[in-house]
Amino acid sequence: MSANRIQPRLPKGMRDFLPADMIKRDYVFGVVRDVFHLYGFEPLSTPVLELRETLYGKYGEDAEKLIYNAQHPGGKEELALRYDLTVPLARVVAMHESAIMLPFKRYQLAPVYRGERPQKGRYREFYQCDVDIVGVADVSADAEVLGVVVSTLRRLGFPNFTVKINNRKLLSAMGQYSGVPDAQLGDLYRSIDKFDKIGADGVRDELIQRGIDAEAVARMMALLVDNHLNADKLGILEDVMGGVDSAAEGIRELRDLSAHLNDAGVPRQFVEIDFTMVRGLGYYTGPIFETVVTEPQIGSLSGGGRYDGLIGMFRKESLPTTGVSLGIERIIDVMDELGLYPAHIGGTVVQALVGVFGPDLRPAATALTAQLREAGIRAELMLQDRKVGQQFNYADKKGIPLVVLQGPDEAARGEVKVKRLRDGVEVTVAAVVLAETVRSMLV
Amino acid sequence: MSANRIQPRLPKGMRDFLPADMIKRDYVFGVVRDVFHLYGFEPLSTPVLELRETLYGKYGEDAEKLIYNAQHPGGKEELALRYDLTVPLARVVAMHESAIMLPFKRYQLAPVYRGERPQKGRYREFYQCDVDIVGVADVSADAEVLGVVVSTLRRLGFPNFTVKINNRKLLSAMGQYSGVPDAQLGDLYRSIDKFDKIGADGVRDELIQRGIDAEAVARMMALLVDNHLNADKLGILEDVMGGVDSAAEGIRELRDLSAHLNDAGVPRQFVEIDFTMVRGLGYYTGPIFETVVTEPQIGSLSGGGRYDGLIGMFRKESLPTTGVSLGIERIIDVMDELGLYPAHIGGTVVQALVGVFGPDLRPAATALTAQLREAGIRAELMLQDRKVGQQFNYADKKGIPLVVLQGPDEAARGEVKVKRLRDGVEVTVAAVVLAETVRSMLV
Repeated sequence: MSANRIQPRLPKGMRDFLPADMIKRDYVFGVVRDVFHLYGFEPLSTPVLELRETLYGKYGEDAEKLIYNAQHPGGKEELALRYDLTVPLARVVAMHESAIMLPFKRYQLAPVYRGERPQKGRYREFYQCDVDIVGVADVSADAEVLGVVVSTLRRLGFPNFTVKINNRKLLSAMGQYSGVPDAQLGDLYRSIDKFDKIGADGVRDELIQRGIDAEAVARMMALLVDNHLNADKLGILEDVMGGVDSAAEGIRELRDLSAHLNDAGVPRQFVEIDFTMVRGLGYYTGPIFETVVTEPQIGSLSGGGRYDGLIGMFRKESLPTTGVSLGIERIIDVMDELGLYPAHIGGTVVQALVGVFGPDLRPAATALTAQLREAGIRAELMLQDRKVGQQFNYADKKGIPLVVLQGPDEAARGEVKVKRLRDGVEVTVAAVVLAETVRSMLV
Repeated sequence: MSANRIQPRLPKGMRDFLPADMIKRDYVFGVVRDVFHLYGFEPLSTPVLELRETLYGKYGEDAEKLIYNAQHPGGKEELALRYDLTVPLARVVAMHESAIMLPFKRYQLAPVYRGERPQKGRYREFYQCDVDIVGVADVSADAEVLGVVVSTLRRLGFPNFTVKINNRKLLSAMGQYSGVPDAQLGDLYRSIDKFDKIGADGVRDELIQRGIDAEAVARMMALLVDNHLNADKLGILEDVMGGVDSAAEGIRELRDLSAHLNDAGVPRQFVEIDFTMVRGLGYYTGPIFETVVTEPQIGSLSGGGRYDGLIGMFRKESLPTTGVSLGIERIIDVMDELGLYPAHIGGTVVQALVGVFGPDLRPAATALTAQLREAGIRAELMLQDRKVGQQFNYADKKGIPLVVLQGPDEAARGEVKVKRLRDGVEVTVAAVVLAETVRSMLV
């Protein structure tokens, strides 16, 4: 390297995706979009750069330290890179009120930026994938959102996963019923949220350490633990707490949600009511959801719920909203680990390499390539003059399934050879049926 | 609005794309990607944020003022938002040398950021769409790149466009042959570049004003103008300048390029040699390309060429590279203006709205919706309880082609109604054949 040539580097926590990875990501993105469209969710795009005033004060102080600020040398506006897709949604709904019809069912699949400490599986630029329904207060909307999550993961080939559902109203009622003071409800939720990690005893100990009255803790734990594995969780809870207004409402919403999921044919094996599932974010107001896979042990694949107050941050009156964020980066990690990609998703988009026997036969090879492309086959023409053996090696190394080659003998007879590298099958056919031949050998 | 609620705004020059626009953009992006794949170009992704040192010193001082800088509060790295997709390509090729096979045929379709003064058709966040081939010195690669441009525009339905081709070596030779000193070649190119705008007389006047010797100007103008509309431009030029080495090389490359395009079956009506086409960027070293449409008068739709030195900015030895940047935002503008979208690309992704006759029939409507989605039809379930007439109005206003409705009578008979809003055609069919019926009515 010469002295003044800089060693190329990437910023910390940022990634390039070379074709072999991009092809997999694009496959996942494509499946996700297809399912969203089937459910009638429409695409939305917002810019990476927002005004700083739009983002600041929305995520809390700790998060604000992670927001990237931006400016060009002559620029006077204070800008920031988007931190999530929810605040931009709220801004869009307020700004384009007259152009948006309610219900507004939108999805957005786009990168967000957070200056977090990079570690395995955590990056500073990563994709979020949100589906939300703005404008519907009824749990029919929550059921739609859950349906899209289940369909997406099934379509992607996830063998087993569980969408856990709970309800914030019910959680609050459980706290109040147990005698936990309102001021300590936040502490209560934070501890319950660890149920899967630290178990019932761990939660109990932590609640007592947080200074919550021992009797209240005992009542709360009874509500959580006794129902934890019971099929009729809601019935038991209703017997105990049915008289508490917010409990009754939470229970009713969970029952309605279950009924909607049944009507929509969502298989029950993928959905489970779990009173210990809390979701960290403070803005949820009703049903909450979280998807977990047990193998590999990787945390949640999606999270969401109803947040009827949030859209009001940019608007005089809020609008009822429910949605879910698919952990698309984690989904891709799991797909990589479990090898869930279909066979045709390989390291290259190319289906056939058209080799060039020698300079004299380059025009013919060029024409054959055009013929394949015209027929919808993804074909690469060998652009450099290399020995035939090297051309086969190139195709093999790149993972191209077929090599098409026309030597002088074939050319003289109007024929062409097609070889499948996987199993060495080779055929010689009339050039006019090349495309059909290639297509049949790709299966 | 309450006093402390901020009026939501976007930064200057930034855009949201609501669903109706996004559906069109995604259609264009989809066609473009499909064609790139047919030609064997593979997807690449690089982060929006690059190290400032990667971008600075690459675009010239004026451009540097337009680069957005970025940083998060605790961040020590000096970052910048990408300004184009070419410098990131050069960085990627140098950084991932061992993982990349040559030739590296990649495309990237992604937003870039420039703090330019916003004006009609010019934004601070806009998509670029680049296809490049790294590692092939032969013009067969330039022909591939031109082929992909022609195929893309044809596939998008552009009725007429012209890809102009020229060669930097030939331009330099023409200048030298005419007697323009090397130091004034830049001035010469800048004036010739305006040929389409100011005409032959304008170029002549400007060259003389720039202080280029009148005799040299006259010789240069003869080369440009005499050939401007002549079919055998290259033959005439060869007769005059064939003895000048670089001219001979440029002419040979243009001839080879033409031959390759013929072999690939690229219709000649879309390609034209134009000696007055220069391309602004200094880094081109051989063939150069530019696509223009005459109607609407909107400037160039693509630009590119061979730049064999550029990859060397991050690498000891450069690699021969040729490529083209499709002006994707401009292409979308033209498609909007000429109405080039297929009929099925409308304001919504939804193909059928499943109405709800009343609360009792919501479970049945939910099941019908699931049935449609299972069959691959993009269906929206009416989530709110509204009067039937309002539901039809909603579908109409949103541009949903079909409404599916099951009233109590239909439900009792296991039937369902499907109405096409465009022409009012309505059928009542057995619920089990709903999906087939909907599909047939969508055509």
